[in-house]
Amino acid sequence: MVCYNTDMPKIVDHEERKSHIAEATWRVILNQGMKGATVRKIAQEAGVSLGALRHYFATQQELLGFAMKLVSDRANARIKDIAGLGLPPKELVTRVLMELLPLNDNNMAEMEVWFAFVFHLKYAEEDYGGLNDGIYPGIVNLLGHLEESGLLREELDMNIEAERLYALLDGVALHALLEPQRLDRERILRVLHSHMDSICRE
Amino acid sequence: MVCYNTDMPKIVDHEERKSHIAEATWRVILNQGMKGATVRKIAQEAGVSLGALRHYFATQQELLGFAMKLVSDRANARIKDIAGLGLPPKELVTRVLMELLPLNDNNMAEMEVWFAFVFHLKYAEEDYGGLNDGIYPGIVNLLGHLEESGLLREELDMNIEAERLYALLDGVALHALLEPQRLDRERILRVLHSHMDSICRE
Repeated sequence: MVCYNTDMPKIVDHEERKSHIAEATWRVILNQGMKGATVRKIAQEAGVSLGALRHYFATQQELLGFAMKLVSDRANARIKDIAGLGLPPKELVTRVLMELLPLNDNNMAEMEVWFAFVFHLKYAEEDYGGLNDGIYPGIVNLLGHLEESGLLREELDMNIEAERLYALLDGVALHALLEPQRLDRERILRVLHSHMDSICRE
Repeated sequence: MVCYNTDMPKIVDHEERKSHIAEATWRVILNQGMKGATVRKIAQEAGVSLGALRHYFATQQELLGFAMKLVSDRANARIKDIAGLGLPPKELVTRVLMELLPLNDNNMAEMEVWFAFVFHLKYAEEDYGGLNDGIYPGIVNLLGHLEESGLLREELDMNIEAERLYALLDGVALHALLEPQRLDRERILRVLHSHMDSICRE
């Protein structure tokens, strides 16, 4: 993560400055939870004035929406990179699923911010449209790819398997966040590989 | 849920009155999230004065701790009842797991309150000791019961299976809470039965 301060040349790129403020938002949420994520603290963390922050984001809701979208944009970009590697189907699917699990500090932080956003939105006054992060349809596609490649066990109900895998991923992410002592990186990987083996032919 | 008001005879039972206030706490959390759960609003919802509330709970932390423990006490009481029914092992385990899923309004409310508490505690100033709800060791026991009864598939790693089942349960609970349109009661049950069939011998 790049750090800016007032001694550095001004960043002219609008989107880059917005991303910089969004990343400051993540850090405040990681340290203090959503209830600590006031525009004042975010501006301070980003090293910008309150006026400058308001120039980029008129409302707190707009800022939080952008910061949340940046989480899924980054994850999607990593997944797109993996999809371009030309891996065999089972390895491809496993690698993509690994991007949705807190296997490194970066992904762990993204997931923590994501859960904080989701719970915040659930109780916000604004309309709430569900998780809406595209992960469930993505998992349906991944299982479809395994099936087309003839790798899935025949007796499986695809519809229920997608739901089961999706629940497994977010359950593991949640528990790794709350109980990192028990559920460390190695254990997360063993759970994932074990599940993949259980749905694929030998 | 019993409602009390000032016209009714005074409730003398200390624990009963504390439970009544804890249930009011749940309702406030369900309607407004943790950040809306101020002692003032809780006292109002419970129909008691702020002074009366402070008589039972000296601090907000004490009240939240009691309200959280009441969630797991109630779930444990239901599970104990099921354990006493003398069911065959696979049915017993399935029935107990059903108590940990949001299959009715009561369990859904408990789970929503539980997640709200857990995320609140994660960012609270006080020491945080993980989920600590006894569910993970409980799941280890349930799988042990299946294995002793000779019902589990032989090739399974019990340690990883406990982690996988625990993640599945909380992932399903989380998604049912956030996306109840897709993940309704019938679909939750299909996921649970499908998982049970996948780990048990035919």
